[in-house]
Amino acid sequence: MSIKKSMLRVAVVGATGAVGKVILSILAERKFPVGEIVPFASERSEGKKILYLGQSFFCHTLKPGCFRNIDLAFFDASDAVSKAWVPKAVQEGCLVVDSSAAFRLDKDTPLIVPEVNGYLLKNPISPRIISAPNCTVAPLVVALNPIHQKYKIKRIVLSTYQSVSGAGLLAMNELKTQTKAFLENKELEPKIFPHPIAFNCLPHIGSFKEDGYTSEEHKTIDETRKILNTPELKMTTTTVRVPTLNCHAESVNVECEKPFDIKEIKGLYASQPTIELRDDPKSNLYPSGAESTGKDPVYVGRIRSDFSIENGLNLWIVSDNLRKGAALNAVQIGEILVQKF
Amino acid sequence: MSIKKSMLRVAVVGATGAVGKVILSILAERKFPVGEIVPFASERSEGKKILYLGQSFFCHTLKPGCFRNIDLAFFDASDAVSKAWVPKAVQEGCLVVDSSAAFRLDKDTPLIVPEVNGYLLKNPISPRIISAPNCTVAPLVVALNPIHQKYKIKRIVLSTYQSVSGAGLLAMNELKTQTKAFLENKELEPKIFPHPIAFNCLPHIGSFKEDGYTSEEHKTIDETRKILNTPELKMTTTTVRVPTLNCHAESVNVECEKPFDIKEIKGLYASQPTIELRDDPKSNLYPSGAESTGKDPVYVGRIRSDFSIENGLNLWIVSDNLRKGAALNAVQIGEILVQKF
Repeated sequence: MSIKKSMLRVAVVGATGAVGKVILSILAERKFPVGEIVPFASERSEGKKILYLGQSFFCHTLKPGCFRNIDLAFFDASDAVSKAWVPKAVQEGCLVVDSSAAFRLDKDTPLIVPEVNGYLLKNPISPRIISAPNCTVAPLVVALNPIHQKYKIKRIVLSTYQSVSGAGLLAMNELKTQTKAFLENKELEPKIFPHPIAFNCLPHIGSFKEDGYTSEEHKTIDETRKILNTPELKMTTTTVRVPTLNCHAESVNVECEKPFDIKEIKGLYASQPTIELRDDPKSNLYPSGAESTGKDPVYVGRIRSDFSIENGLNLWIVSDNLRKGAALNAVQIGEILVQKF
Repeated sequence: MSIKKSMLRVAVVGATGAVGKVILSILAERKFPVGEIVPFASERSEGKKILYLGQSFFCHTLKPGCFRNIDLAFFDASDAVSKAWVPKAVQEGCLVVDSSAAFRLDKDTPLIVPEVNGYLLKNPISPRIISAPNCTVAPLVVALNPIHQKYKIKRIVLSTYQSVSGAGLLAMNELKTQTKAFLENKELEPKIFPHPIAFNCLPHIGSFKEDGYTSEEHKTIDETRKILNTPELKMTTTTVRVPTLNCHAESVNVECEKPFDIKEIKGLYASQPTIELRDDPKSNLYPSGAESTGKDPVYVGRIRSDFSIENGLNLWIVSDNLRKGAALNAVQIGEILVQKF
């Protein structure tokens, strides 16, 4: 492909969703070489105006041929929409960064977190679908890769504290509405979540599988293994929805093969451009969602030895799940791709 | 001691606090053989009336000699208050159930969760201070003891989701006030917690120690070892305050020495009178705080094999931290003690 980068026609599928909106704002913020934005949304939003750098663009619905003049499409839609439309987009000549789970584990689809495995994106770009991982996985592998490279991770035990924005705008509204109702002693009406989420934690994200794990837990394990390029990595997880609006937190327990010093780990992190250490407990400094929302880094803190095993480590990771967990990571993939246009 | 049980003079120290109030209601609810209730509180509450079974009792402050006519005292006060007053109460002839951390790890002080190690309370009762554990520990050992007895637990990795009621009534008010302020786009003012707790998780309970762990994390490990009578138990934990009003949840990863079948584990739990299994994921049935508040059982669910190690197990535990985590456990200790009067 040889086109002027500033002329790129960029589609955002799911442009009115929680992640889609953030993709649009990050594209603008990072001066992505956009010639024209083409927003797609469901029929509900057809004709709705989307603002991009002061210009209005009308939302379209997906139709055969709609990707014919698009160079690059960011898909942030359901697995079903991606499964149906991503292959069509590719057929119509478009390059796709897909944030759904539809293709992530396909042998031939690169699953990319640029800081970790961006090098997999070769020139010319083939295949034409690049997957972005689950919103807990992107920050997790950013934080764990430096450790894995140096000390080789043997096993991970992960418990998550996931905000409702991971379930979309309606879920954010549900938390706000239920919280208000709770404070007014009114009844809570669960619609998006199976139980009330206001002032409540639910160990249930995605759907339950035969082995008792949720789809979210399976994704977290499978995608971490794929991105860290360690299929034999031992990992278990419990993923939990907590009543926060935005930013996922993760309590991560790691067993390494090689010995380390906590100071070395902190040194490793200090040199990572997309990680910010927040780790001075004596000054009450540790990552929390309230301070991380709208920010790009993966925040790491509470770094300490796990004295219950050899070469054990505990970490507390927080990142904006709409940004590094989703939109930012997708745009960062896009930034690598446009270098290869 | 030989007195009519129905004549017992029972003191509650911290009677106006979050746990103290629940102790009073549980004493009444369980028909504890109370002859007279003597509520103690700080100077702030002196003269305040406390209702017990329809009768009013005035709050007193602690003064030398105040325990002279008391048979049994439930202390739910700060470590400092317990350190200063529990020995005096004992000297004045009173038997004490202390919920503070002041004596829990003393070699000669029994640290009791009745279902697990109530048998340690012999007749005549000596020593005269009985400690009750931290609010995460009581439900944890209730849930883990049956497994430990049968399959011997080698290692525990614990991440907690602790409600603000564990930090008292003012903390509950702070969460409500901040939440309301957040929804009205007003500024949040942290007073009890070092950072905003509304819609936020803080990996910080208690105070930070040199090794990077909090006092809460140390307590959780030390007390679990003591109650399970396994000083060599390998255990690590990250304790986290979440924006829920009441009930603690715990994501528990366990490695056992002996192999087990998940059905066996569920069978074990089904026979425990103080545990309630909530474990039918296909019907969205798992423990959550909203449904557990005001209830006595330790709720266990999300029981599944951890495939990342041999004999690995994941559990999700929820219980009312004001009840089994504190007041109920203290009253249950009291119930054993009165049998020995």
